[in-house]
Amino acid sequence: MDITINRESKTPIYLQIKKQIEHQIVVGKLPSNFILPAERTLSMKLGVNRSTVVKAYMELKADGLVESRIGSGTVVLASLTKDVTQEKMYIPPVRWGQFESKRAARAGEQTINNILSVFEKERIISFASGISSEDACDINLMKNLNLQIIEKYREKLFMPTPVDGSTELKTAIKAYIQGNGINAGTKQIMVTSGSQQSIEFFARTIIDSGDVVLVEEPTYIGAIQAFESYDAKIIGIPMDDEGIRLDILESCLIKYRPKFLYTQPNFHNPTGVSMSLERRKGLLKLAYYYNLPILEDDPYGELYYSGNPLPSLKSLDNNDYVVYLSSFSKTISFSLRVGFVVASENIISRFIQFKQITDIQTSTLSQLTINEFLNGGHMGPHLDYLRKIYKNKRDLMLNELNKGNLDGMEITVPNGGYFIWLRLPDYIRMNEFVKGLADKGVVVMLGDIFYPGYSINGNYIRLNFSYPSEKYIKEGVSILKNCIKQYSTASLKKKYEFKAEINPFI
Amino acid sequence: MDITINRESKTPIYLQIKKQIEHQIVVGKLPSNFILPAERTLSMKLGVNRSTVVKAYMELKADGLVESRIGSGTVVLASLTKDVTQEKMYIPPVRWGQFESKRAARAGEQTINNILSVFEKERIISFASGISSEDACDINLMKNLNLQIIEKYREKLFMPTPVDGSTELKTAIKAYIQGNGINAGTKQIMVTSGSQQSIEFFARTIIDSGDVVLVEEPTYIGAIQAFESYDAKIIGIPMDDEGIRLDILESCLIKYRPKFLYTQPNFHNPTGVSMSLERRKGLLKLAYYYNLPILEDDPYGELYYSGNPLPSLKSLDNNDYVVYLSSFSKTISFSLRVGFVVASENIISRFIQFKQITDIQTSTLSQLTINEFLNGGHMGPHLDYLRKIYKNKRDLMLNELNKGNLDGMEITVPNGGYFIWLRLPDYIRMNEFVKGLADKGVVVMLGDIFYPGYSINGNYIRLNFSYPSEKYIKEGVSILKNCIKQYSTASLKKKYEFKAEINPFI
Repeated sequence: MDITINRESKTPIYLQIKKQIEHQIVVGKLPSNFILPAERTLSMKLGVNRSTVVKAYMELKADGLVESRIGSGTVVLASLTKDVTQEKMYIPPVRWGQFESKRAARAGEQTINNILSVFEKERIISFASGISSEDACDINLMKNLNLQIIEKYREKLFMPTPVDGSTELKTAIKAYIQGNGINAGTKQIMVTSGSQQSIEFFARTIIDSGDVVLVEEPTYIGAIQAFESYDAKIIGIPMDDEGIRLDILESCLIKYRPKFLYTQPNFHNPTGVSMSLERRKGLLKLAYYYNLPILEDDPYGELYYSGNPLPSLKSLDNNDYVVYLSSFSKTISFSLRVGFVVASENIISRFIQFKQITDIQTSTLSQLTINEFLNGGHMGPHLDYLRKIYKNKRDLMLNELNKGNLDGMEITVPNGGYFIWLRLPDYIRMNEFVKGLADKGVVVMLGDIFYPGYSINGNYIRLNFSYPSEKYIKEGVSILKNCIKQYSTASLKKKYEFKAEINPFI
Repeated sequence: MDITINRESKTPIYLQIKKQIEHQIVVGKLPSNFILPAERTLSMKLGVNRSTVVKAYMELKADGLVESRIGSGTVVLASLTKDVTQEKMYIPPVRWGQFESKRAARAGEQTINNILSVFEKERIISFASGISSEDACDINLMKNLNLQIIEKYREKLFMPTPVDGSTELKTAIKAYIQGNGINAGTKQIMVTSGSQQSIEFFARTIIDSGDVVLVEEPTYIGAIQAFESYDAKIIGIPMDDEGIRLDILESCLIKYRPKFLYTQPNFHNPTGVSMSLERRKGLLKLAYYYNLPILEDDPYGELYYSGNPLPSLKSLDNNDYVVYLSSFSKTISFSLRVGFVVASENIISRFIQFKQITDIQTSTLSQLTINEFLNGGHMGPHLDYLRKIYKNKRDLMLNELNKGNLDGMEITVPNGGYFIWLRLPDYIRMNEFVKGLADKGVVVMLGDIFYPGYSINGNYIRLNFSYPSEKYIKEGVSILKNCIKQYSTASLKKKYEFKAEINPFI
């Protein structure tokens, strides 16, 4: 490799070197895979600084003419012309995995995506979702509301609102929650794109890596995944038929010094259990005593089917310990994506900071549709209607489940909300069973996923009764029960076979 | 303090102790602020384990009867009855600040919120936003589209879509971007709630604390804040009139080994500069050579006012190095919050995981409105219309700025997009000036905030011409120029005064 240095030239030496090597590559004198002399060797040969050769090689690399290969050194890539086209250049494959954050690697399963994707499939009976049925939507009312807001707001309907929500909607929410005993000014209220976003913002505001977060066990999967995504250590507190066990909560408060407690006092997802009034008061007492913030998630509070609704923790709390979340997803429409948070102003201020860098604002069209719904006085009658149809569906599903005699099955009867929590006989292997059931066209939620850390805690499934039609409830429960019976027979048979082989477990 | 232990009783000893102390508090025998014996002392006196006394005191604490005070020990709080009411209990104030994550403390200014909040005020001339004007919205078209989708989808309009977007909209987006030279299957396309959400998900997928991210300098404030919220180290690469400086980029690639580059090749926010075709090709070459992922943000690409549009980096990239973001926020409606990302499937899969724990899905109503807009063939004529009205507004603003003679002012003329980047004379103190201008009713964006780390890099302001009416453009620019003139006179006067006082800076 001949290179001549001209120290009189205005061209810097590194460029002289680079250009001569480039020329030799382009004319084919240095063929593909030719190994260039080591930088030190060439610098000594030419009597220049090593850094000058390094710079020359760097330029050649940048032009895609050579590359560094471990074990070989600097290698000629191909005899390219100066006008290097992408096709001719060696392009290392992009390995996205190597660029991912630890957070991304920690991201949970696509549970919710899997559930929502089911709806595009035909002939699936879904007991797995957490959404309303199509007949819960009064399409004529929605159509009229849409026409009204287009006439009323015109172009403004497609213009931005403040990050924390349209002032009109916040005022309407203020009046709405006042009806449920929560007194808050519009500065303590913020509109979010559904409760999941409120949970996410709260997690983001509070959780540092390794912090302990307490939850009811089991609890809402979307909360578990949001807390896990910020690397929280999640501790589950068992429940009984009055809700979270305060004795165990208290010992965990002492032991773990958690950052906060996430709770759903009303018609808890997935168990359907409601916290008793006494328990609510006791919980607040503990919160005050141990300085424990509470994240109260209340998507189902309005959907009670017997008795009177109980006061929310927020309405019992005069000391700002409770951050209250709710939404219109379970009552007006899941897919408009409008939720809200009630909290002290410094929490709201953090939420605004996070919202402006995550989605800037909730759809104006969605916000004003909800606003019109509330202001038009439609919420009361609509809730009455929902309570009626969902109560019927709940009762139908309970009846179908109770028909006949299935040993070892336990039903938790909910007084409201969307779900029945069902314990199946002990001999059933749940993963296998749920998969088999899906093959027969009925999708349910495996109970295990509602336990933090996916600890297996019993043979539970969650059944949603709000979405499926009455016909599908009957068909689906019938298929479910047949599967259990078949499993039971198969299991007995298996036991018998095991016995013949002298199964050590019997 | 008399306590009797009955070892024959079924009541556990700790409860016997607790109940007797409780009784003495309730009957007033132990007054408020009475200091209970130390746990060790009492346990020795009663001949029980220390842990038994600890447990008894814990119960008393849980009931709000006593509290631990540093330096005093366990102190009686008040003579409460068993039925402790919240009002009587001592409740420490909740200090939200002490619960906040480091991330929350790092959260940026409420810049975007401040801009969007302005719109609710009357008689403000806003050159600060990044949104379209009301007259860019064809309200009759939007009304018809809304009627059409209600008739077409009925209840389904208020039901969920998959997390990554409705299949129909993804198919429409596929065809739409194909028209701009980007070939992608629907599995490489995902619907987001606007580009800001795409930026946020990308940051969340890629950035670990301390990672280096390269950006053009200046760059979009929402990207800076999103990257900072994941604790990235942001390095700005200067631009010239052909876009990002590749020589400086390359030396930064070698020096910092960044995780990715964020770039806006078309009508860059805030400068309005577009990257030349040669620069685009050179950038890709560097990306391939240095294994550098590129996040290409293209909200303004369709809004060109002279010449032909240039190919996106994504359309030039056959090797999956580019993640492409765009949205309908700058063309159809900001507030419908519909954006999209085009990327390799493993990136999409991470985005789905993050979307399901942040907002689950983008509003179905918004998605199907956009879908109808695209499928109805409205996009082409609408873009032609926008190019016409925005070109006129840009020209008007440029004319108004160029009228008269203002020394030391430099205008960067954009060939498209929303913004004019304006350099003001050096003697102007920018913070003071922008504040004074706002007092006169004209809001502009201070250039400094577009520099990572808020490093002060010159006397720039960003002027938006898409939102204000022609009348407001004229009025606003006139006020702006008067302010500069006044400042200039005042500044000269000040200089004179300083001189009289023998100002050491002259």
